[in-house]
Amino acid sequence: MYIGIDVGGTNLKAGLVDETGAITAVERCPLNFQGPEQFTETLASLAVSVSRKGGVSPESPAYVGIGLPGAVSGGDVLFTTNIPMKNVPLERLFRRRLDLPVFLGNDADCAAVGEYFCGAGRGTRDFAVVTLGTGIGCGLLLGGKLHGGQSSSEAGHLVICHGGEPCNCGRRGCWERYASATALIQQAQAAMQSHPESLLHDYAAENGGTVEGRTVFSAAQARDETALAVCRKYVEYLADGTVSLINILRPEVIAIGGGVAAAPEQLLLEPLREIVARESFARHGGMTTRILRAELGNDAGMIGAALLGRAI
Amino acid sequence: MYIGIDVGGTNLKAGLVDETGAITAVERCPLNFQGPEQFTETLASLAVSVSRKGGVSPESPAYVGIGLPGAVSGGDVLFTTNIPMKNVPLERLFRRRLDLPVFLGNDADCAAVGEYFCGAGRGTRDFAVVTLGTGIGCGLLLGGKLHGGQSSSEAGHLVICHGGEPCNCGRRGCWERYASATALIQQAQAAMQSHPESLLHDYAAENGGTVEGRTVFSAAQARDETALAVCRKYVEYLADGTVSLINILRPEVIAIGGGVAAAPEQLLLEPLREIVARESFARHGGMTTRILRAELGNDAGMIGAALLGRAI
Repeated sequence: MYIGIDVGGTNLKAGLVDETGAITAVERCPLNFQGPEQFTETLASLAVSVSRKGGVSPESPAYVGIGLPGAVSGGDVLFTTNIPMKNVPLERLFRRRLDLPVFLGNDADCAAVGEYFCGAGRGTRDFAVVTLGTGIGCGLLLGGKLHGGQSSSEAGHLVICHGGEPCNCGRRGCWERYASATALIQQAQAAMQSHPESLLHDYAAENGGTVEGRTVFSAAQARDETALAVCRKYVEYLADGTVSLINILRPEVIAIGGGVAAAPEQLLLEPLREIVARESFARHGGMTTRILRAELGNDAGMIGAALLGRAI
Repeated sequence: MYIGIDVGGTNLKAGLVDETGAITAVERCPLNFQGPEQFTETLASLAVSVSRKGGVSPESPAYVGIGLPGAVSGGDVLFTTNIPMKNVPLERLFRRRLDLPVFLGNDADCAAVGEYFCGAGRGTRDFAVVTLGTGIGCGLLLGGKLHGGQSSSEAGHLVICHGGEPCNCGRRGCWERYASATALIQQAQAAMQSHPESLLHDYAAENGGTVEGRTVFSAAQARDETALAVCRKYVEYLADGTVSLINILRPEVIAIGGGVAAAPEQLLLEPLREIVARESFARHGGMTTRILRAELGNDAGMIGAALLGRAI
């Protein structure tokens, strides 16, 4: 038995997870951050309560894995984004309250670990998860081990358009400015301005005036030409970074996650696979990377935190 | 003692290499390819003669490492470029002639292994060599082991310009179309057309009418504005892919090799380091990748072939 805790910007979710990755109990609580001591207290309480809920004593899990939005080093948190922590010796603070070994990981890395052992990455050696959300997250397992370990891969900050759109990271033309969920929505909004006849306006109106990723895919499924063109262009951008990752690392599988990945196969993964088959360099040697949908959804980070000990 | 053989398009070079990577003897011969049997015969003769030249018996080296332009799998050559081999059981053929263990590797991978143990990569865990030549070659060592193993990373086929220049690989806008030595020369030639006053014309005339990488750097050192502008733009393109590799993998060192890497520091590596420092995502966590010049030159592949056994 392992405990995995997924630390989000507003909530914590802890799971008691067995050797096969199955969740036997879950506990949630608000983050309500008031400093490292109180935060660690909350983590330890959550670990105790999820153990009890799962019917085991709080000392019996092999370790606690904790996934955080930021960078870690061994048992220390180097920094977190959206939670004000810097250089916090989290393992030491935790073990004062509950004496279990602690593994820390970046949250995107934990999601990749979860998918690796229990989802789309099962049975591979080299594996990447690309998560399409506000930005593009990426976790890499190479040779069965998490690559990097301090913080996740920042594949979202591949440049795909030299001199292109400015990115918060300081570069121009980053992949996530073109292929994140945010970018898809912006591309749809721009297309709506020049296409007043598009069904996108009707679907957005039905959605309270808001365009979401699913709005675009719904309109495309209804054969709206503007929405179809937005989807085609979006998949081209998505393929730019996906094929580049393949050419650099040749993983056996890349799993696409995040809300956008729920799109109908024929609008997202099928055309993406066609471009991958056509453009990947490794095809010359008969080596191909499979493009799959991530399987674990919101549980990936928690399950991955619980299985961190196997991937580090 | 190990034997390393670098198989080029026209010549073979074998070295007897000791545990520290020092070369104690070298033998060369023409490739003159006439099929896998004759090729293996040449390899075995070369191994025997380099051993004798180095004063050891041909059975005493721990193994023979062979670097080839193509893809390998275990003891088999999957295919080679510019040499007509496909699915050749090279280790088996070799051991019929000289019974030593055989390690096979891609040539760009071997160069990276050489630099890792004996050159710019010494003391690192995660390391990349980027070689600027006709295209862009790339070898990766991650956690001290060669990544991939069958064939080198194809980082030259990162897309840095969506919809840009067509590449032989089938994509558009590949990094090597903008940042290889070939691309630098093309960029200089284009600039010469619109700048008849540029010193580039004089330097090219002195070079028998031919523009080479060194022509551009010489003119830039003479403060020719056109050549300086070509260099600045070229470094921008070089940085696009370099920073992308850093953001994906965060190696401790990236070594730049190939003829272009001999350019004066202030025209190539210094401005490249400035962009890397400004644009790398990992700078947020205080993690930096050092950009160094590759150290071993033309011996990297042979030394790396000899040390392949440590990196696989």
